[in-house]
Amino acid sequence: MKLYSLKGAPNPRRVRIFLAEKRVSLPVEEFELEKGLHRQPDFLKRNPLGLLPVLELDDGRTICESVAICRHFDEMIPEPPLFGRSSRERVDVEMWSRHMEHELLVPMIDVFVHTHPLWAGKRAQIPAYGELRHGQMTERLRWIDEVLKDREFIAGDRYTIADITAQVAVLTGRAVARLEIPDDHTNLARWWKAVSTRPTARA
Amino acid sequence: MKLYSLKGAPNPRRVRIFLAEKRVSLPVEEFELEKGLHRQPDFLKRNPLGLLPVLELDDGRTICESVAICRHFDEMIPEPPLFGRSSRERVDVEMWSRHMEHELLVPMIDVFVHTHPLWAGKRAQIPAYGELRHGQMTERLRWIDEVLKDREFIAGDRYTIADITAQVAVLTGRAVARLEIPDDHTNLARWWKAVSTRPTARA
Repeated sequence: MKLYSLKGAPNPRRVRIFLAEKRVSLPVEEFELEKGLHRQPDFLKRNPLGLLPVLELDDGRTICESVAICRHFDEMIPEPPLFGRSSRERVDVEMWSRHMEHELLVPMIDVFVHTHPLWAGKRAQIPAYGELRHGQMTERLRWIDEVLKDREFIAGDRYTIADITAQVAVLTGRAVARLEIPDDHTNLARWWKAVSTRPTARA
Repeated sequence: MKLYSLKGAPNPRRVRIFLAEKRVSLPVEEFELEKGLHRQPDFLKRNPLGLLPVLELDDGRTICESVAICRHFDEMIPEPPLFGRSSRERVDVEMWSRHMEHELLVPMIDVFVHTHPLWAGKRAQIPAYGELRHGQMTERLRWIDEVLKDREFIAGDRYTIADITAQVAVLTGRAVARLEIPDDHTNLARWWKAVSTRPTARA
């Protein structure tokens, strides 16, 4: 079994944090964006979409999508239950995990891809779209600060994959999308301190 | 229990098809985009994001996200298993469901929102972004046609939520994003005929 990852990229990071929380260690091959090797014909046999991460299983099958890779390990190693333990928790985690992805992580990546010089000439950039997404983040960060008013973690009182997604969104925002947690967002800041100091945060 | 839906919108449609496959019938309140009532303070108490669908449970709790609503019913009513039956199926469904969403449904909605006159003056439109997304669909539809070469449904030999998402993406493409299944995409056309003639397709 082997994980193909991409240095500095948000989706592989989600999987690496998830694996660290599950105490799984496995061989990882890191690609680099600059070299573009994951878009070469050899690698496209593994994932025709040319996206990372990709998990290659011992029987040669591949799982080509970050949350599906996490679910694969969750099926094999139930503890800790990062997708929720009870029926109700599983539904809450699904909702918050998807909210964190669609309302936070994807927009942050959009800001990065459409406004950052790193992508100039590599992908079509539409700066006006990046700015639109950047503008939406003010309201979203305030909403998440409110959500965290009466709970410890994003989906309730337990750390789950919803936190991992939000965590990677904040990292992306700070690193490449000109977005920081505003000073008066005290609940969000308290949550960020808790998640970013977990031993798995730098996986 | 009550479902708040939005006439003609893709995400509520996903939930309605899912419920029909599970043979669940429940009261539905349909909003209309033109009236914008789901963005009024009264409704924002149910979902601060102002998005539909929303499921209101008998104890007053709300589930504000389409796939989370589907998962709620899947937890209560296991048959038919639209999220997969075995461990391996659940991982495959997760992967294909997310692929169909990120590679097909979300881009179709982006084309709609950023280029369709319906949204003029209602939301910020960046036509160049809509056109970029429109252009990406040619390659994506060819990829899905290839995926369907040796299997009956998107995630394997069983109809799942991945098909529902793809189905709603094709409907959105045809209705409002100037995208049709090309004539030479015979696998995709065969799949479309199968899913669009299911008794639940018009839910």
